Amino acid sequence: MRGFELSEFETRTRRAQSMMEAHGLAALLLTTEPEVRYFTGFLTRFWESPSRPWFLLVPATGKPVAVIPSIGAALMGETWIEDIRTWSAPDLKDDGVSLLADTLVELTSSDGAIGMPDGHETHTRMPQADLASVRAGIGMRKVVGDHGILRALRMVKSPAEIAKIENACAIGGRAFERTPEIAGAGVPLDEVFRKFQILCLEEGADWVPYLAGGAEQGGYQDVISPARTTPLTNGDVLMLDAGLVWDGYFCDFDRNWSIGPATSEVQFAHARLVEASDAAFETARPGVTAATLFHAMDEVLKRDSEGINAGRLGHGLGMSLTEWPSLIPTDHTVLEPGMVLTLEPGISVGNKILVHEENIVITDGGPRFISPRIGTELPTV
Amino acid sequence: MRGFELSEFETRTRRAQSMMEAHGLAALLLTTEPEVRYFTGFLTRFWESPSRPWFLLVPATGKPVAVIPSIGAALMGETWIEDIRTWSAPDLKDDGVSLLADTLVELTSSDGAIGMPDGHETHTRMPQADLASVRAGIGMRKVVGDHGILRALRMVKSPAEIAKIENACAIGGRAFERTPEIAGAGVPLDEVFRKFQILCLEEGADWVPYLAGGAEQGGYQDVISPARTTPLTNGDVLMLDAGLVWDGYFCDFDRNWSIGPATSEVQFAHARLVEASDAAFETARPGVTAATLFHAMDEVLKRDSEGINAGRLGHGLGMSLTEWPSLIPTDHTVLEPGMVLTLEPGISVGNKILVHEENIVITDGGPRFISPRIGTELPTV
Repeated sequence: MRGFELSEFETRTRRAQSMMEAHGLAALLLTTEPEVRYFTGFLTRFWESPSRPWFLLVPATGKPVAVIPSIGAALMGETWIEDIRTWSAPDLKDDGVSLLADTLVELTSSDGAIGMPDGHETHTRMPQADLASVRAGIGMRKVVGDHGILRALRMVKSPAEIAKIENACAIGGRAFERTPEIAGAGVPLDEVFRKFQILCLEEGADWVPYLAGGAEQGGYQDVISPARTTPLTNGDVLMLDAGLVWDGYFCDFDRNWSIGPATSEVQFAHARLVEASDAAFETARPGVTAATLFHAMDEVLKRDSEGINAGRLGHGLGMSLTEWPSLIPTDHTVLEPGMVLTLEPGISVGNKILVHEENIVITDGGPRFISPRIGTELPTV
Repeated sequence: MRGFELSEFETRTRRAQSMMEAHGLAALLLTTEPEVRYFTGFLTRFWESPSRPWFLLVPATGKPVAVIPSIGAALMGETWIEDIRTWSAPDLKDDGVSLLADTLVELTSSDGAIGMPDGHETHTRMPQADLASVRAGIGMRKVVGDHGILRALRMVKSPAEIAKIENACAIGGRAFERTPEIAGAGVPLDEVFRKFQILCLEEGADWVPYLAGGAEQGGYQDVISPARTTPLTNGDVLMLDAGLVWDGYFCDFDRNWSIGPATSEVQFAHARLVEASDAAFETARPGVTAATLFHAMDEVLKRDSEGINAGRLGHGLGMSLTEWPSLIPTDHTVLEPGMVLTLEPGISVGNKILVHEENIVITDGGPRFISPRIGTELPTV
């Protein structure tokens, strides 16, 4: 089912307000796409345009209040939000600043603390000069951090959210299954990328915000490059890493293929990667930490190889391609039912690397793969 | 040709440094995808992941310096940038903050002013708490605005940039031409959206970051909604607005079709839209302002109809879907050769709207359509 029941937004808002009370926040001020969508359901690709700022206030009680460009009024009017204040943006003199400041003044007490997400994996999507003007325009009120409220809320997904991520994963799984139709020796890598995005759309993706990968002899150099025009040749390992969206929720997993027969080193490395993600999977229960999952994978990877410097071995997943927590030794986030994670071990093979990635959900009973779990054998095309 | 000659980046950097000198800036500090790419050519879809900050410094003299997560080192190493400093991100304690502060201290004098874009259409892509730490970690140096340097540079495109935008436009034009293959009475709108993205990819798009549109009886309600599952029916006006990318540069234009015969009101409104964009086109010469183009369109649109509240009638276009300037009465930006603009008039028809959009480039000799100019007649499928 597309969209959410009304109760989903009511619950999110109530939880936020309860945490706000505990931290003494009079309001939350939100500016980014997932933050605004989390409390409203406002889903549009228009955020691709960086021209206009958008604001959502979560007051101490009652429904969130939207302060947005008039071009968004009709679509916001279809959500559960009732108090929608608009200005004709862009306005070069006052691009929503005084409307936002006035609304903050109206909705909070004169010494209220207004929380904006300011920690890891956040940013503020408005001009810095305008943020300074808002600060100056709200009297004695202070703009402070959000005490990690958005992080805490978004990190644990509802069943309805998990269903959307699972659907995105299923679409990605079907596209990966069909990849031998489009890849093979002689096909330029950029054509593979283009056609893989077509497969994702054919299989039901709403859009494909992320595709990366590589294809070189016996591995690849990095995992974030756009596609080159080089044709695939025998001995290449092709990797595609897909972040497609269904109803606003992402999957994020990858697959590897050998073009022609793989060397035993490459086969061995691929098997190790799958063993590593399986080891993390077995460990992934409520109560253990993100760091535990890192170590479960790292132990397998380091057995007879060097690690790679990708920074982490997995992460959260949901309304964004990547979210908290990070699977690193220093992230002691305790896993809870409803968390959706990627397991993303990487390994070096000579001067190249291989990376494998699966998506799982943490449940009371134990973890569940939501990307189609694969075996240790590297498929050949 | 993909990529740019080395001289392109040298010229961009030299121009920035000359403006920096005029404004007394010791360095520019940049954090967003187009800003970093503008001076480096660093092209990756990895920015879709909000987890890691990326930094580029443009010092007063010499090449830019990259301060980036280690996962980007290999790809940045393929650009003309030589001084690449990395940290293993994410780092929950210090996510590049001290490396960035140390680099700023090293590259600027002890009372230097460090410019960050802070005006209209900008934001700072890093956590606010980390920005505060950087400010605290650079001694007497001050972080100030960039005096509009990035805006001034990016707003005027080089011939090589224009060629990329033209190629994106040509791809979009071919996809629009094929739209009757995929749209017609009975086809759900979300299927049209999905298949249109496939057409864009088949015609050569690298990816399709933006697609919006609508289809309702005699017009549509808004222009930023994602696709609904409602099937097209006779009397609908279908609009698709595509922002596809080729080699990192966007096109952004739309097309309208009538499903079955259109009413005379709709036909008339569509003709007025094309007359309006043509009127702006005729006016679009070096020396006139963005506001002049607005008024040229507005005069045609207001002749026998009300305007719509989309905020503007066009905008700049390039590395982002939308850029400065805005075609609004208060934007007095003077047009220069090399500016690429969208002309995007909107008109109301009863309680619905219609929007038409073309892309043009300003040249010394006169403007040039880079989207395939259409006639006043609304096509029927």
